[in-house]
Amino acid sequence: MKIEIITTGDEIMSGVTLDTNFHWAAEKLMSLGFDLRFHTSVGDDEEAIIEALRTAKRRSQAVIVSGGLGPTPDDLTAEVASRFFGIPLELNDDALQMIEERFKEQGRKLLEINKKQAYMPKGSQILKNFWGTAPGFQCEKDSVVFFFLPGVPKEFKAMLEEYVIPELDKRTLGRNKFKSRMVKTSGLRESEVAERLKGIEREGVKIGYRPNFPEIHIRVSGYGDTEEKAEKMVSEVIEDIVFRLGEYVFSTEGETLEEVVGKLLSRNRLTLALAESCTGGLVAHRVTNVSGSSNYFERGIVSYSNESKVEVLGVPKELIESFGAVSKEVVEAMAEGVRKLAKADIGVSISGIAGPTGGTPTKPVGTVFIGISHEKKGTSSQRFQFKGTREEIKLIASEVVLDRIRKFVLNNV
Amino acid sequence: MKIEIITTGDEIMSGVTLDTNFHWAAEKLMSLGFDLRFHTSVGDDEEAIIEALRTAKRRSQAVIVSGGLGPTPDDLTAEVASRFFGIPLELNDDALQMIEERFKEQGRKLLEINKKQAYMPKGSQILKNFWGTAPGFQCEKDSVVFFFLPGVPKEFKAMLEEYVIPELDKRTLGRNKFKSRMVKTSGLRESEVAERLKGIEREGVKIGYRPNFPEIHIRVSGYGDTEEKAEKMVSEVIEDIVFRLGEYVFSTEGETLEEVVGKLLSRNRLTLALAESCTGGLVAHRVTNVSGSSNYFERGIVSYSNESKVEVLGVPKELIESFGAVSKEVVEAMAEGVRKLAKADIGVSISGIAGPTGGTPTKPVGTVFIGISHEKKGTSSQRFQFKGTREEIKLIASEVVLDRIRKFVLNNV
Repeated sequence: MKIEIITTGDEIMSGVTLDTNFHWAAEKLMSLGFDLRFHTSVGDDEEAIIEALRTAKRRSQAVIVSGGLGPTPDDLTAEVASRFFGIPLELNDDALQMIEERFKEQGRKLLEINKKQAYMPKGSQILKNFWGTAPGFQCEKDSVVFFFLPGVPKEFKAMLEEYVIPELDKRTLGRNKFKSRMVKTSGLRESEVAERLKGIEREGVKIGYRPNFPEIHIRVSGYGDTEEKAEKMVSEVIEDIVFRLGEYVFSTEGETLEEVVGKLLSRNRLTLALAESCTGGLVAHRVTNVSGSSNYFERGIVSYSNESKVEVLGVPKELIESFGAVSKEVVEAMAEGVRKLAKADIGVSISGIAGPTGGTPTKPVGTVFIGISHEKKGTSSQRFQFKGTREEIKLIASEVVLDRIRKFVLNNV
Repeated sequence: MKIEIITTGDEIMSGVTLDTNFHWAAEKLMSLGFDLRFHTSVGDDEEAIIEALRTAKRRSQAVIVSGGLGPTPDDLTAEVASRFFGIPLELNDDALQMIEERFKEQGRKLLEINKKQAYMPKGSQILKNFWGTAPGFQCEKDSVVFFFLPGVPKEFKAMLEEYVIPELDKRTLGRNKFKSRMVKTSGLRESEVAERLKGIEREGVKIGYRPNFPEIHIRVSGYGDTEEKAEKMVSEVIEDIVFRLGEYVFSTEGETLEEVVGKLLSRNRLTLALAESCTGGLVAHRVTNVSGSSNYFERGIVSYSNESKVEVLGVPKELIESFGAVSKEVVEAMAEGVRKLAKADIGVSISGIAGPTGGTPTKPVGTVFIGISHEKKGTSSQRFQFKGTREEIKLIASEVVLDRIRKFVLNNV
């Protein structure tokens, strides 16, 4: 069954927004073994949407349309679908009820404009939206099934998983069983990963590289006539990947780096305190994205000014004067200072030059020192030279910090 | 002249690679006022590429194809084009010479496999590639012009600018001039923005709503026979938007909220210190994403544990015991504490329950207190009830905090 995705929206056609819905859905459908054949995008333009629907109906058997279900005047999809199918719009009572419920839950007043979202081509099947206020709908014409979903990524993704995939599954019984897992690595470039994994491909297994700056994720997908066979092939290849990449792999289950670090700290009953300068709170933000992080994360100090390094962290003023705030000496004093201040097991610090200004010949933009302090293992630091924009340097630095904590716990406890 | 872009490649259709070529070209063409109407992507699949070319030829007058010009067996584009146009492939001497020169420059040996790249449909015009080794080509059929470009982003972009845009320019003399600006709002939902902007549309101006959680961005695009006219129309509509939405608009120039806050603080020579609990450093991270933020951002304390609130911020222990860490009393003590500690002009604090656990009947998940303290204006706080996942609650809270700072500076200084 050939599948086509149509993404609509002026923001996509004008290059304002990257079309992440398609990207995400493509990976999802492919990882489940579906035959995604075409993707079309068009603006919020009635004629263009009709033309895209017509073309899709001719060449595909399932069509997933995203976008244009909102309350604003440029949201045209339901109207266009009505014209395309030759079926009038009708107020769908279930849809109206769903919208009313969502607004009540959120304590919001239902505006006249929101009722528009309850209209859909007569006889369509409503796809309830539990993640937002725009209901979707499904209808069929000449044996081609159409799914209309909202364009808000969170809603699009949830509804694709909730409604579209089970329906496609039903319609493609007997296709190969499929298993897929995500291996995540930190510290290698895409070409380095590819070089180390040369020749790892085998019949029935597909390997996809997915750079997710600054990490490289590796999607391993296996096809087989039973789930067990598919699963086994995937596991074998992942074992081989871990053997070849070693400590660069931080998860074989798709977890985030901060989740992995959190589990390691929890399991070893260790507490963490952070002293951040150039990352400006990003490391603490990532650490606290994990539910339950209050069990191991004690506090963070974003010591942007030199005064705060001296006053809060107890860094000797003379160290800053002699070596500069971005130095081995200061970053180690920061790590030790925050560890003692917080009475934490591990103190970690970051000081650097995120740019674009502030660089010097000996400490150019991208120079970052990372310190780590532990009561028994002592205090040490490393110097790094990163490249990129301000936000990229912050992101790489936060990544290296988290990876340092991961390796410290793995190797020292 | 309707333009269509076709991007080809298994890595796009499987969701492995984000289609940045389309995104980039869309913004480029749109900003120049071209009428980009359709975008199709297909995998490295002969039948699918033919079908995409056929559809594009039927509905568009200029077609830009990216990808599939490399030396490997899955690079099919020239062959498919030959089949589609019914014109045999021919060794193009200029193309071969170009490839030989490129290899010589790079000190690489020309392999037999690379000669494949010199074949193109007979009578095509070569588009020399000075940025890589794969030449492109241009041909015309039934008044539709086709450009075939390599998929490597650097080469695609350079060749689009070098060959495609001048050619499209020649073919669309007298087309409309185009201007576009982005208005950003915080604190309103999409439907509320739309409700307030009802009837604002006018001839020659397009308004696009782009929810960017938790902000709503509004793209205003104007077309006219001169740049000045287009510009003027856009400005008039934006003035009307600002009149209707008032303080909810934080930028009419596409700046981020943290950039706007930074400018306001700088301009008024005010310094800022933050005490974050539930946002875990996210506010400091956003503030420090702005280059030059060290001029106004003094420090941030991520006081996750109660001890850190007491020890670093000087919150009286009894306040936490009597009212709980998530309370008006504690958040105000945090704001005042961090302001005094940092000797900053403004101290801002956040304490709440990001979830998914930790909620109570009187303080459910999503309860967030935000405090603000200023030496002369005193200390105050507000209670909010947010909804969403842990990361969403952190993000909304950080947004509301930044917007509070913006309004505080606007209204008090």
